[in-house]
Amino acid sequence: MAKKLTSREQDYSQWYNEIVQGADLAENSGVRGCMVIKPYGYAIWEKMQAELDRMFKATGHVNAYFPLFIPKSYLSKEAAHVEGFAKECAVVTHYRLKNAEDGSGVVVDPTAKLEEELIVRPTSETIIWDTYRKWIQSYRDLPILVNQWANVVRWEMRTRLFLRTAEFLWQEGHTAHATKKEAVEETEQMINIYAEFAKNFMAMPVVQGLKSESERFAGAEETYCIEALMQDGKALQAGTSHFLGQNFAKAFDVKFATKEGKQEYVWATSWGVSTRLMGALIMTHSDDHGLVLPPKLAPFQVVIVPIYKGEEQLDAVSEVANKVKKALEAKRISVKFDNRDTHKPGWKFAEYELKGVPLRLALGARDLENGTIEVARRDTLEKETYQIADIENKVEHLLENIQDNLYNKALTFREEKTYKADSKEEFIKLIEQGGFVYAHWDGTAETEELIKKETKATIRCIPLGVKMEDGVCLFTGKSSDKRVLFAKAY
Amino acid sequence: MAKKLTSREQDYSQWYNEIVQGADLAENSGVRGCMVIKPYGYAIWEKMQAELDRMFKATGHVNAYFPLFIPKSYLSKEAAHVEGFAKECAVVTHYRLKNAEDGSGVVVDPTAKLEEELIVRPTSETIIWDTYRKWIQSYRDLPILVNQWANVVRWEMRTRLFLRTAEFLWQEGHTAHATKKEAVEETEQMINIYAEFAKNFMAMPVVQGLKSESERFAGAEETYCIEALMQDGKALQAGTSHFLGQNFAKAFDVKFATKEGKQEYVWATSWGVSTRLMGALIMTHSDDHGLVLPPKLAPFQVVIVPIYKGEEQLDAVSEVANKVKKALEAKRISVKFDNRDTHKPGWKFAEYELKGVPLRLALGARDLENGTIEVARRDTLEKETYQIADIENKVEHLLENIQDNLYNKALTFREEKTYKADSKEEFIKLIEQGGFVYAHWDGTAETEELIKKETKATIRCIPLGVKMEDGVCLFTGKSSDKRVLFAKAY
Repeated sequence: MAKKLTSREQDYSQWYNEIVQGADLAENSGVRGCMVIKPYGYAIWEKMQAELDRMFKATGHVNAYFPLFIPKSYLSKEAAHVEGFAKECAVVTHYRLKNAEDGSGVVVDPTAKLEEELIVRPTSETIIWDTYRKWIQSYRDLPILVNQWANVVRWEMRTRLFLRTAEFLWQEGHTAHATKKEAVEETEQMINIYAEFAKNFMAMPVVQGLKSESERFAGAEETYCIEALMQDGKALQAGTSHFLGQNFAKAFDVKFATKEGKQEYVWATSWGVSTRLMGALIMTHSDDHGLVLPPKLAPFQVVIVPIYKGEEQLDAVSEVANKVKKALEAKRISVKFDNRDTHKPGWKFAEYELKGVPLRLALGARDLENGTIEVARRDTLEKETYQIADIENKVEHLLENIQDNLYNKALTFREEKTYKADSKEEFIKLIEQGGFVYAHWDGTAETEELIKKETKATIRCIPLGVKMEDGVCLFTGKSSDKRVLFAKAY
Repeated sequence: MAKKLTSREQDYSQWYNEIVQGADLAENSGVRGCMVIKPYGYAIWEKMQAELDRMFKATGHVNAYFPLFIPKSYLSKEAAHVEGFAKECAVVTHYRLKNAEDGSGVVVDPTAKLEEELIVRPTSETIIWDTYRKWIQSYRDLPILVNQWANVVRWEMRTRLFLRTAEFLWQEGHTAHATKKEAVEETEQMINIYAEFAKNFMAMPVVQGLKSESERFAGAEETYCIEALMQDGKALQAGTSHFLGQNFAKAFDVKFATKEGKQEYVWATSWGVSTRLMGALIMTHSDDHGLVLPPKLAPFQVVIVPIYKGEEQLDAVSEVANKVKKALEAKRISVKFDNRDTHKPGWKFAEYELKGVPLRLALGARDLENGTIEVARRDTLEKETYQIADIENKVEHLLENIQDNLYNKALTFREEKTYKADSKEEFIKLIEQGGFVYAHWDGTAETEELIKKETKATIRCIPLGVKMEDGVCLFTGKSSDKRVLFAKAY
């Protein structure tokens, strides 16, 4: 615990890894690319899940569950989709092991080979649209507004905890509609919900926009995204919402009878966020002392550490601490009272700093005499001593203030790191130093590819509501009517 | 909807299937043995999850997440465990597909073969204890009280929706302790929690007991279980809690330093319930009209159906219905007001009967004049007309009454179907007609196997707190000191 973290300046990537491990969020497992999400990390994910689930349900969605496995032939049914997802995936070929003849353990039983291989779902459009065919006959069956919380697997070669793992947890919404208009509105509603969640709960500002054609989801007609800026100046795609047109309805033959009795293909959307949000959360707020958590997502918002010598003092301090705890809990503030005798206060201070607990309250014998309590904010690292009477209102106020402060700090950071580039040289320089760069682009996939090759920057999105503005593409000189958002990205 | 269900008498198994499908709980998918859990079914599972999760957390447990995949070699490390689980499982052998040369679709890329095959987890003891080795050094790191909500896969040859599926959802608790005593207490605590949940939420009486050695979890030293009796007289194992001794600690070399500085192996438990509980819930309460749900697990507890001619009447009825809905919701009663104009009241009545909604309120123009409302109970199918004033208190009381009534009915059923057999002939006759049969057994696996062969009955459990009583085994005549519980089982 006493060991200092590597600073962001020194080695950003190492800093990130040390926080993930040091704050007990996650660790690598014995299975290549698959992580173990530890209880403290999982508690943050549960808070995210609970809030997102509430938002989905408030907009009429219900949860369901579809199979983990996808028959190989399903993937081939939508041409663009198979190109995007069939390549790096986990393939189940057998359904039995048997004892090795030499007694060395178990081996795959060659007689138990599947007729058709099964793919561990990398995303569930195909298995779900195969199911929707049975659910949808008439306009009366529409819309279908379903979400699924699940694990998915994409065989990534280079993995990083939370940011890119072979298995990850996510939610995937899959909706079916009678009209294009309704499907587009759903797609937009969901990206708005993600942006609202990022802002109000993660305290993370995001840019909303459309992906360029080459960055679209495989099988989508339009992909909406939210993009956040990390402290190293790289962008992170934090959520996507896809308008799928009638592509999957056509691939899986899902038609409905309209009110007028005509047969039409159904319109589709899908949208998802994943445990990648954990990576975004960590990199948005944390500092060289460790994790910093917005109060709304902290497993516990307040920790109380007793300062004492001997059991008698601990008893006296505990009595007051437990009263404070109760008063805070009555205000729905989550509190941990760490009265472990196995660790010293200084050790505990460092521990909770590393774990990003928003407020630390320290209470000692002197405080009991004076009717005071020491309060330390994790975001600013400021300490102040308050009267203990009415401390619950003070704490409530401070937690709100921390939540706001974290958002404003992140927003200021992003604004300071957001640039406009008007020449190729300027563009290259800005991309190199990191940040969001708005620049003109001629709209072609070829130029997009060229820019990526030369600078490693990708088009993060074509921002929604972007101002039309005449200009020329920095790389080809061809005309352009708006700036798009470039950055190097995770 | 109008179609009558097959009756239990006629064909119990068909009746079950028709309820699962007719009440929109689940259906088979395009993947052999894997089900789709539909929104209405999933909503019941979510209610179960929420309550169990609350009970786990109230007893100090936290959630975490471990990998879906288990390296083949891990399974071999615990000898009994591999015997039980390595046989029928999904094996991942490759990590890439490629386009077929003949353009026919995608095929497994033979160059992307894994060095070591991965097993889709049938249960997670091995991957978790491989992880605990890193988490546990000293007695200070104990106990570890972790639970995981996850999907697991066991390659069952004969599957039935909820009762036995290749993939299912469950929770698996995995705890680590410094002493045998503490681990045994944890094992017992968790089976008590399952029994309490079954009684208070599922309204399902269960017998708690120990499994015989041959029915134990593969790798356990003792398996506690809860056993419920279904309406066809067959038993259903509804939850298990295992005392694992030091077996997994030894297999994965997990030791800790005691307070005295000695190195000792860690003691373990694991415990789980699954979507199988959905099958138990359905078969415990439902009748020939469809699903019957205990109010505490119903996705909505009350449905209000308007009876009207024309829009004017609908408006008038809706105004009152919405007031009733609000008054009920203020009491935390969940309500659906079904004002769809696409279906007639009679159709809706049949629909909600099939779906097991505990209370149906019908409100018509005549009721508005009289200040009344008709209330129909799903459990007894009784209808009564009440004054609408104060209806929320009436409904609250009725819901409590339904919850109790369902439990008492199920308990009476079980008691009527619980027998003692004192001769082999009697035993065979009772087992044939269905029910729980208490009988003496000589305690050997051979006799257990013999009884199973001759009668299809298995030992469901050796009930906890069973009275010691001298007797002789019905099949071998050898002496026995207590009766154990026999039944045919799911």
